[in-house]
Amino acid sequence: MGKIVNLKIVFKVISRNLFILSAALFVCAGVAVIFSENTLPFILSSLISLAIGLTFFLTTRKQSENVTIHRKDAYLTVTLSWVFISLIGCLPYLFSGAIPSFVNALFESVSGFTTTGASILTDIEILPKSILFWRSLTHWIGGIGIIVLVIIVMPTLQIGGYHLFTLESSLQEKIQPKIKAVGNRLLLIYIILTVAEIIFLLAGNMNLFESICHSFGTVATGGFSPKNTSIIDYSPYIQYVITIFMFLAGTNFVIHYYLFKREFKKVKENEELKFYAIVVFSIIVLITASLYFTMNKPLEKSFRDASFQVVSIVTCTGFASADYLLWPAFAWTIIFFSMFLGGSTGSTAGGIKMVRHLMMLKNIRRNFRQMISPNAILPIRLNNNVISSETNRSILTFIAAYFLVFLIGSASLVLLGIDGETASSSVATCMAGIGPGIGTVGPASNFAHLPDLGKMILSFLMLVGRLEIYTVIVLFSRNFWGK
Amino acid sequence: MGKIVNLKIVFKVISRNLFILSAALFVCAGVAVIFSENTLPFILSSLISLAIGLTFFLTTRKQSENVTIHRKDAYLTVTLSWVFISLIGCLPYLFSGAIPSFVNALFESVSGFTTTGASILTDIEILPKSILFWRSLTHWIGGIGIIVLVIIVMPTLQIGGYHLFTLESSLQEKIQPKIKAVGNRLLLIYIILTVAEIIFLLAGNMNLFESICHSFGTVATGGFSPKNTSIIDYSPYIQYVITIFMFLAGTNFVIHYYLFKREFKKVKENEELKFYAIVVFSIIVLITASLYFTMNKPLEKSFRDASFQVVSIVTCTGFASADYLLWPAFAWTIIFFSMFLGGSTGSTAGGIKMVRHLMMLKNIRRNFRQMISPNAILPIRLNNNVISSETNRSILTFIAAYFLVFLIGSASLVLLGIDGETASSSVATCMAGIGPGIGTVGPASNFAHLPDLGKMILSFLMLVGRLEIYTVIVLFSRNFWGK
Repeated sequence: MGKIVNLKIVFKVISRNLFILSAALFVCAGVAVIFSENTLPFILSSLISLAIGLTFFLTTRKQSENVTIHRKDAYLTVTLSWVFISLIGCLPYLFSGAIPSFVNALFESVSGFTTTGASILTDIEILPKSILFWRSLTHWIGGIGIIVLVIIVMPTLQIGGYHLFTLESSLQEKIQPKIKAVGNRLLLIYIILTVAEIIFLLAGNMNLFESICHSFGTVATGGFSPKNTSIIDYSPYIQYVITIFMFLAGTNFVIHYYLFKREFKKVKENEELKFYAIVVFSIIVLITASLYFTMNKPLEKSFRDASFQVVSIVTCTGFASADYLLWPAFAWTIIFFSMFLGGSTGSTAGGIKMVRHLMMLKNIRRNFRQMISPNAILPIRLNNNVISSETNRSILTFIAAYFLVFLIGSASLVLLGIDGETASSSVATCMAGIGPGIGTVGPASNFAHLPDLGKMILSFLMLVGRLEIYTVIVLFSRNFWGK
Repeated sequence: MGKIVNLKIVFKVISRNLFILSAALFVCAGVAVIFSENTLPFILSSLISLAIGLTFFLTTRKQSENVTIHRKDAYLTVTLSWVFISLIGCLPYLFSGAIPSFVNALFESVSGFTTTGASILTDIEILPKSILFWRSLTHWIGGIGIIVLVIIVMPTLQIGGYHLFTLESSLQEKIQPKIKAVGNRLLLIYIILTVAEIIFLLAGNMNLFESICHSFGTVATGGFSPKNTSIIDYSPYIQYVITIFMFLAGTNFVIHYYLFKREFKKVKENEELKFYAIVVFSIIVLITASLYFTMNKPLEKSFRDASFQVVSIVTCTGFASADYLLWPAFAWTIIFFSMFLGGSTGSTAGGIKMVRHLMMLKNIRRNFRQMISPNAILPIRLNNNVISSETNRSILTFIAAYFLVFLIGSASLVLLGIDGETASSSVATCMAGIGPGIGTVGPASNFAHLPDLGKMILSFLMLVGRLEIYTVIVLFSRNFWGK
């Protein structure tokens, strides 16, 4: 008692994560065997992960399973989990010599586990297949991690209104077996989506290796591709398949869960889903028109390029089937603004998220009503629930905090001598977990040329954005470490 | 009864505004006489203003003075007042041939009355002195108009928390004579500031005409200068004098009012004043350092240039004593971000305003506290008053709505073929009522080269920004015109 945080609980959870990581690295050693590549980097990394995990496990084994996890413990656990996993995740890049610089390897690893997809690699295809497999697998692990975090962990902390966006009442009771059952179902849905996409890609004559990597990158809304040109050189069929799966991956997994349980009424009533569909569709129409009329592309090609890029940016995936920097200024300005949208909550997508924008618009509309009838009581509702003023406040504040971090991040990069366009879009794309930006970090380019300090700042911002801003920043507050 | 708005009340108020405008135009005819210039444009404009005013007055004279003004009437009156005044205010430009194009003349007139200071003039000094005087006078009229609006009109509407930022309780009682007394004192303070600056400028060997014009432009935080090079060619003394008066003009006039009434305790307790001073000072330090270390300017010159430009941008004045586009990228990025700050409420400054940013930061800080102690009751206070959750909500929503208008405005200008930097900074500078932007609309440039439709959009955005977003936008809502 009296301790600020219960480090035993924190490191107990981290030890489990490291065991999973160790197993994943071991799988990659298997992939290396298949392609007759060097297995040593993976076996070594796997053993290191196992050793650190065991150390944590043994030093914390006296900690009972049933102790209450306090909020502070949870925040620290979440951030440290991603930090430890990212640190160990960069070992295969270093050991194999694929990415010799530590800063670059860490950037690539953080980018993977945060499902961002921003890369420092200038030539992807010269790397061993097993390394590319690992790179895509980091997305997949990060993706399921974030779903568990947002749908299962965050709502139980009762902060920021996550309980309203996700499974609502069902998890409020905190019954352990029920939480486990939900977790298992979510994992099952995640696996089904992954396998389904692999099958559809195979059907389009993509080879198995690339199908798996792209499926990992899609379902996690990550964006790493084993190809230098991302999805540009694939067939229209492949591009459509990936567009659809990116859209599905950017949908709240609670929706998939309800579909799975055949609770169609709840799906139909979900306002975020409607809003997400309408926003994505509207932006696609705008950009299709822009490409069709100003670039004279055929309508189907305009529509395909627009849909792919819009869905890729809004869901924070970051795959590219065209270089939007070659588009008219209007189109890529819309793309830049779209970087602040984000997919649905409870999906693998990053960014501000649809439901927060929806709530913001509801607040703005409500202000107009209140201006005309100041004494009317006009509650703000979501999915037929009245939103408490405290939840509403924390949602509006989240958006403000997001932009504040964005501004400070952009100014820091500009201070390092990076031009304004590149700086601001790098921060926007990394915070939201998208991948490509504008300027010198466009879809046909990468982050290799940025200064090391810039890459460190961006790695930190990927974590901050991925873990919903507050979870990370709170660790730096005086209140956290005070009693 | 049953009418949506009481047009008689609306046009009664507008008729009075037109009488004031008519008198102001008549004064300019006098200035034209002094400089032996053409008086006809002013006499004609004055008569037109008088005629329209009389028409409105006569058709509405049956309307009793003591009828209650409803909210909808107030919103319509405010917006239409600025529209009518701007329309008639552009007549002297057209009649004198100084600005032959209607769109340009309207842009200059709206820019004047909204105290923006963005100009379409490419050579200011070739214009008749009387026209330049009128141009500066539009600032001065717009400035006192906005003070009356924010300190007297808005709080009585009890929307958006204005009653908390301004005179608090004293005006809640709505006693007519008291409101008039406050109004007269504010006007007196406004005149004292104007005259004081004129004296200080004269003391620095600026001639009387330029002193008056610059004083009008400063106290109204407008930014029109009768010189092509704004304040660049004046002495350091003049630059410091204008810096100080811009800062004073960007201070809540309620503070001046309290100083006037010797209520120093209220001044000391005012959180917005403290925040305003700290923010301005911090940005000055950042930019002084940037200029001193990267441009090798002497320290005094670095400090002077930084202070002048920072105060000019933060208070939304827009005078220039240096071209910040020639500064290092870090410095002008900070300048660009500062365009979203805005001075204090109840001042002539535009933009989002200090108190809203302060409230936003208080909300963010509170979220961190709430994360750690979710059940603690942590009210948000301002100047020792607890802010209601509804007021708090409307402040946070204001910031969101401001950025939404900014994004839509920027995208519209980009669609017209304007480059992203120029488009976004034009919208930012016009919405906040600053004047110069970034790109092709920098301090050494002007808005003449933008397409007509772009100028119309920017004129509209100047009005929207000046009248605190909602007051204008609400007129376009379905609820407003429904019963």
